[in-house]
Amino acid sequence: MKPIPSFSVFTRIFTLGALLALGAQAFAQTDPLPAWNDGPAKQAIVAFVKDTTDQASPKFVPPAERIATFDQDGTLWVEHPMYTQVMYCLERVPAVVAKKPELKHVEPFKTVLSGNREAMAKLTMKDLEEILAATLTGISVEEFNAEVTKWLAEAKDPRWKRPYTELTYLPMQDVLKYLRANGYQTYIVTGGGQDFVRVYSETTYGIPPEQVVGSAGGTKYGYDKAGKPFLTKEPKLLLNDDNAGKPEGIHLMIGRRPYAAFGNSTGDRQMLEYTQAGAGARLAMLVLHDDATREYAYGPAAGLPDTKVGAFTQALYDEAKKDGWIVISMKNDWKRIFAFDP
Amino acid sequence: MKPIPSFSVFTRIFTLGALLALGAQAFAQTDPLPAWNDGPAKQAIVAFVKDTTDQASPKFVPPAERIATFDQDGTLWVEHPMYTQVMYCLERVPAVVAKKPELKHVEPFKTVLSGNREAMAKLTMKDLEEILAATLTGISVEEFNAEVTKWLAEAKDPRWKRPYTELTYLPMQDVLKYLRANGYQTYIVTGGGQDFVRVYSETTYGIPPEQVVGSAGGTKYGYDKAGKPFLTKEPKLLLNDDNAGKPEGIHLMIGRRPYAAFGNSTGDRQMLEYTQAGAGARLAMLVLHDDATREYAYGPAAGLPDTKVGAFTQALYDEAKKDGWIVISMKNDWKRIFAFDP
Repeated sequence: MKPIPSFSVFTRIFTLGALLALGAQAFAQTDPLPAWNDGPAKQAIVAFVKDTTDQASPKFVPPAERIATFDQDGTLWVEHPMYTQVMYCLERVPAVVAKKPELKHVEPFKTVLSGNREAMAKLTMKDLEEILAATLTGISVEEFNAEVTKWLAEAKDPRWKRPYTELTYLPMQDVLKYLRANGYQTYIVTGGGQDFVRVYSETTYGIPPEQVVGSAGGTKYGYDKAGKPFLTKEPKLLLNDDNAGKPEGIHLMIGRRPYAAFGNSTGDRQMLEYTQAGAGARLAMLVLHDDATREYAYGPAAGLPDTKVGAFTQALYDEAKKDGWIVISMKNDWKRIFAFDP
Repeated sequence: MKPIPSFSVFTRIFTLGALLALGAQAFAQTDPLPAWNDGPAKQAIVAFVKDTTDQASPKFVPPAERIATFDQDGTLWVEHPMYTQVMYCLERVPAVVAKKPELKHVEPFKTVLSGNREAMAKLTMKDLEEILAATLTGISVEEFNAEVTKWLAEAKDPRWKRPYTELTYLPMQDVLKYLRANGYQTYIVTGGGQDFVRVYSETTYGIPPEQVVGSAGGTKYGYDKAGKPFLTKEPKLLLNDDNAGKPEGIHLMIGRRPYAAFGNSTGDRQMLEYTQAGAGARLAMLVLHDDATREYAYGPAAGLPDTKVGAFTQALYDEAKKDGWIVISMKNDWKRIFAFDP
């Protein structure tokens, strides 16, 4: 009978397990951004968090003021070849026409129904606005939420054959979690529709609806036949949350200047300027899409012609360099792009 | 030398102190609303919190969805004889005219400068809008915040001779704290100016600026001579956060239906209807100003002629009774009104 050695083996195994656990914990503590490669971008984020959360630092920020804002399309998830919400609107057209058959032979609905991709690519911004108004308004808030929820559960991105909500960037999820673990409130500030993004923001990004700022239309209060009140989505734009509309939207919806802001296109320029114009430590970052293999490469800074969607112009690149904004290279700074990456 | 008895006396005193402290704590635990008299209003609040926070209850509400909205004027603080923000605007007129002397002989500024209270009482809603636009817009967000902060530090209510921010109702402060201690996010939803209320909401109510929904004007992004960006307050109304504008504003700014809503006038009717139309436990309450001695009594339900400010009409009272909204009698339900009350 050798009770003590066997106990000792158990102890040794237990100790080894405990040490491994401790080691993993220590590793997690030293690497809060595991999907990032080491480099200036990662270092800037870690330095910013340390500076603003260390009470002894002159750059300390009280917890209540810790606000970080994130553009969505191209910053938190894939925006190519088409914004997900535009895809939603185009795919909703048949259902809208089924309810209003008079639209069947009217442009731009006729073109969308034809399924002719070449013709659809030629739709103007005015056509698109008409499609957005027809597919996003005129229904109750609850109906809209139900429609988007249903679509998101079924629709798949044509390249990855996965639900759109899986196309969120793992390194940015790291940043969201890291900032929240350090007392930051993380907001989405998107040119996309506020109501659309709110449907999935909590499950996809851990961001509750009240922390989504987006382009927003008005609603109209009314009563159904039973006298129950409800809100109808109106085709009236209250906030065009892009370009200068981003700092304006931040003031309207949050009322505080962010300490950190993340974007990827000219539409985010003013948000980054406004963030950095505040006193103390400020973090302004731009995601550069320069990874044609793992995601997409676009914009002149990636050595490619500029595009309409997510335009990262040379002027933006120059302003970033001049103002000390940090450009994130997807190719070099991101170890993994998606959670489903090996 | 009697060291032990003296030690014992000390112990006894200490123990008595400890017991008193424990007793106070136990009392606080059983009475989360110490400024309230026992009665149906207090009981309704306590029952609502118990129902919605007890995981075993069919009415349990997940923490993320716990939203409570509060009107401000007449619900969280005194609104008579004039809204505090209107007082601010009137008192700002001389400073505005000093900067724009051409307004000196133009109505309605001329009347305000005269100080003639009878003439001022006859100002129309259009006059008032002109005064609001002149005193609240055309300056940067930072200038506005600084002006309001300065005014609040100096201005005093004519009846109580105290800063306006001390005229908040202690029982409602109890409710705010009690709800927050139970995981509720407490929002102000006011017809008053969002930017105005945000200046003092955190210190006065413990409510951060991002949880203040109010009537909101647009801002315009621009740059100063040094190229630094700033936001100018524009005379363009984005959200008239009163009546139907309250549920519309709640949708815009929060994106969730509240579980509890508190108001005191017809301007809060739609917010209460919208709150109560949701499924599960909902709490809709109205403060009735029926205490002419300790505060004010107004509205037909208080047996007094209806007034423009904070109109609590008979129709509202009837809807409250019909829909099961709970009317709070300041006179009977509130043990103390202000923190400075004996």
